[in-house]
Amino acid sequence: MKGNVIVGQSGGPTAAINSSLAGVYRTAKDRGAKKVYGMLHGVQGLLQERYLDLSDYIQTELDAELLKRTPAAFLGSCRYKLPEIHEDRTVYEKIFKILDKLKIEAFIYIGGNDSMDTIKKLSDYAIITGHPTRFVGCPKTIDNDLALTDHTPGYGSAAKYIGTSVKEIIRDGFCLEYDKGLVTIVEIMGRNAGWLTGAAALSKGEDCDGPDMIYLPEIPFDLHDFSDKVKALLAKKKSVVIAVSEGIRTKDGTYVCELGSSIDFVDAFGHKQLSGTASYLASFIAGETGCKTRAIELSTLQRAASHAASRVDILEAQQVGGAAVKAADEGDSGKMVVLQRLSDDPYQCGTEVKDVHKIANDEKLVPREWVNKEGNYVTDEFVAYVRPLIQGDVSPVMVDGIPRHLFRPYDL
Amino acid sequence: MKGNVIVGQSGGPTAAINSSLAGVYRTAKDRGAKKVYGMLHGVQGLLQERYLDLSDYIQTELDAELLKRTPAAFLGSCRYKLPEIHEDRTVYEKIFKILDKLKIEAFIYIGGNDSMDTIKKLSDYAIITGHPTRFVGCPKTIDNDLALTDHTPGYGSAAKYIGTSVKEIIRDGFCLEYDKGLVTIVEIMGRNAGWLTGAAALSKGEDCDGPDMIYLPEIPFDLHDFSDKVKALLAKKKSVVIAVSEGIRTKDGTYVCELGSSIDFVDAFGHKQLSGTASYLASFIAGETGCKTRAIELSTLQRAASHAASRVDILEAQQVGGAAVKAADEGDSGKMVVLQRLSDDPYQCGTEVKDVHKIANDEKLVPREWVNKEGNYVTDEFVAYVRPLIQGDVSPVMVDGIPRHLFRPYDL
Repeated sequence: MKGNVIVGQSGGPTAAINSSLAGVYRTAKDRGAKKVYGMLHGVQGLLQERYLDLSDYIQTELDAELLKRTPAAFLGSCRYKLPEIHEDRTVYEKIFKILDKLKIEAFIYIGGNDSMDTIKKLSDYAIITGHPTRFVGCPKTIDNDLALTDHTPGYGSAAKYIGTSVKEIIRDGFCLEYDKGLVTIVEIMGRNAGWLTGAAALSKGEDCDGPDMIYLPEIPFDLHDFSDKVKALLAKKKSVVIAVSEGIRTKDGTYVCELGSSIDFVDAFGHKQLSGTASYLASFIAGETGCKTRAIELSTLQRAASHAASRVDILEAQQVGGAAVKAADEGDSGKMVVLQRLSDDPYQCGTEVKDVHKIANDEKLVPREWVNKEGNYVTDEFVAYVRPLIQGDVSPVMVDGIPRHLFRPYDL
Repeated sequence: MKGNVIVGQSGGPTAAINSSLAGVYRTAKDRGAKKVYGMLHGVQGLLQERYLDLSDYIQTELDAELLKRTPAAFLGSCRYKLPEIHEDRTVYEKIFKILDKLKIEAFIYIGGNDSMDTIKKLSDYAIITGHPTRFVGCPKTIDNDLALTDHTPGYGSAAKYIGTSVKEIIRDGFCLEYDKGLVTIVEIMGRNAGWLTGAAALSKGEDCDGPDMIYLPEIPFDLHDFSDKVKALLAKKKSVVIAVSEGIRTKDGTYVCELGSSIDFVDAFGHKQLSGTASYLASFIAGETGCKTRAIELSTLQRAASHAASRVDILEAQQVGGAAVKAADEGDSGKMVVLQRLSDDPYQCGTEVKDVHKIANDEKLVPREWVNKEGNYVTDEFVAYVRPLIQGDVSPVMVDGIPRHLFRPYDL
């Protein structure tokens, strides 16, 4: 590379997104980039000319290791949607002027569906205007809902955390005894795709039965059938643990969390903000059965738990970061790096690049055949798919009993 | 020892309570106990003659190591309050008949305040009736609210988990940008004592500012003062993180969680069941400021997270288990083992035994001088007290990507 590289992070944070940033930095430096800039808060910050020189923060190999162990977007994130090119070109002109000023040869954007939309539009604009900067996307989302890639960095660590925490919750539930039984509802992220919720099944093993039921958002949810199944379980055991996606909906499309409350907030991309599915179901079941119920939301912890990250995930995140720089350096633009699984056992996985036009705004859902017939558990195939992604640990750098992260001042 | 030992677990589970069980088993065996029985679900299960022989489960040294890494009460827990002796002697007669049948020389009960009440009553009954069985308590509670002991096993691991998770949440909050700012309220366990909530301050270090405010239940909570302080913080920074105890109350004694909801459930010991403090405050602040708010309950995870346990805590839990057996073997009864800190730096701590009559039903609160003048943060003295208790890790035994626990069938 002869010019400079700029990298941004966008969308919801994960435990692995900074490992991709470390990968981008290292490969860019290895390939001769003079400067590697980081946009602060993605394209939104770039438009305000907010960026930093990553060399000021990654000064040693230890810094890079700390960065890989730091949760959430080191550079800050945004949820900014670029206008269509034909609607408003001024935003594009502004961005490209900044890129020219910084002599940017490669623009790398680490993010999910919405971020790939940004890569698509910027690379389209570059083609239209004959601009030489190359735009490559680097997948990231705990939701694992990106098309064309076998899985997304960030998912494996979240899945490992969910499997571990659900196992601990099951253990906690079984040691308590209530006359009419105990039902624990664990609410897991994933608006439309059940990849995270299905990961609750990872808790199952020789020493644990796993959750009793798992409800994904892909399958319409029937409240009365659910109640019947819970009652049948309570007749057999004292403690019932159920994993539900935050996004489960009834047959007519109503979110379960909307049945009990009036929360109806929509974000910049038109997504509904959800919460309260477990609370609603816990109250519902308490009313139906008289048993003790608990609602547990894994909430932000499931995407931020670097202390329990998967080694496979952290290493793959770094690889896709490096592969994105390599692709841009070799002339690719309007592409996203994808992970291609070569084999399940032994697990082998490589990277490729795919046209971002085929990816943006497409959601990959859990296939129907990876959910059982009754629609209340994932199959062995699902578990076989996820299992390799949670292998190995990344030992946190512990300082005085608490994991150390890479510092940056927040008032930039 | 010539006879047998029986051990039970009671009250809320922790990440360290099974390490005490492992300590009891090992010392009892080392001192010649023929059988070490485990009551299933504490005294409540014992009254139904539900118990097991621990040798059937702890067959190898690896089993003992797995037990130390298994969260929640391996034997099952209960919340059973013995009647006063003068009110109803039949329960006592029944228990002592079972103890005689099993040739019990030492009865060890691992638990918190309520469990020490059980030890007190049983040892009193033994004295009244001239019965030779000895009763010794082994402290356990994440709440750290037991009198006379420097701290309680279970607290250190919960504190480490809280410090780690709050640090990850702070990092997550800072990478998001909202026009009017983001306020995250983290709700932490501890009905009356702020030991757990104060542990949020452990997140503070060279790489993290820690939470912006910390509210303990010991200090009356003023909603308007809180709102003013949040507004002042939002004027200076984009992301504000506040740790609150589930048990904070206004000056007139009303729980903050009761301000917004009608939950009013009381358990067998007359304790109110709380939830929703963070949700209430998040809605309140959203209304007051128009900013984005998030409510995060650390919930059950903070007491069950064996995967992030403190080594000091797990080892001390084992020691107090062993010390309880030693005390009973040497003739003590009606006693609880306590931890006595000899030095902060280097940290040194030993065990002693104290009269359980001086302990039972007394709550140890955070001293007023360990909270700042404004009542919204803990002092350096508080952190110096907690810091040694979270040192070191206990590597989980990972099998296929998930921590392994010691198995037992749940239908016993």
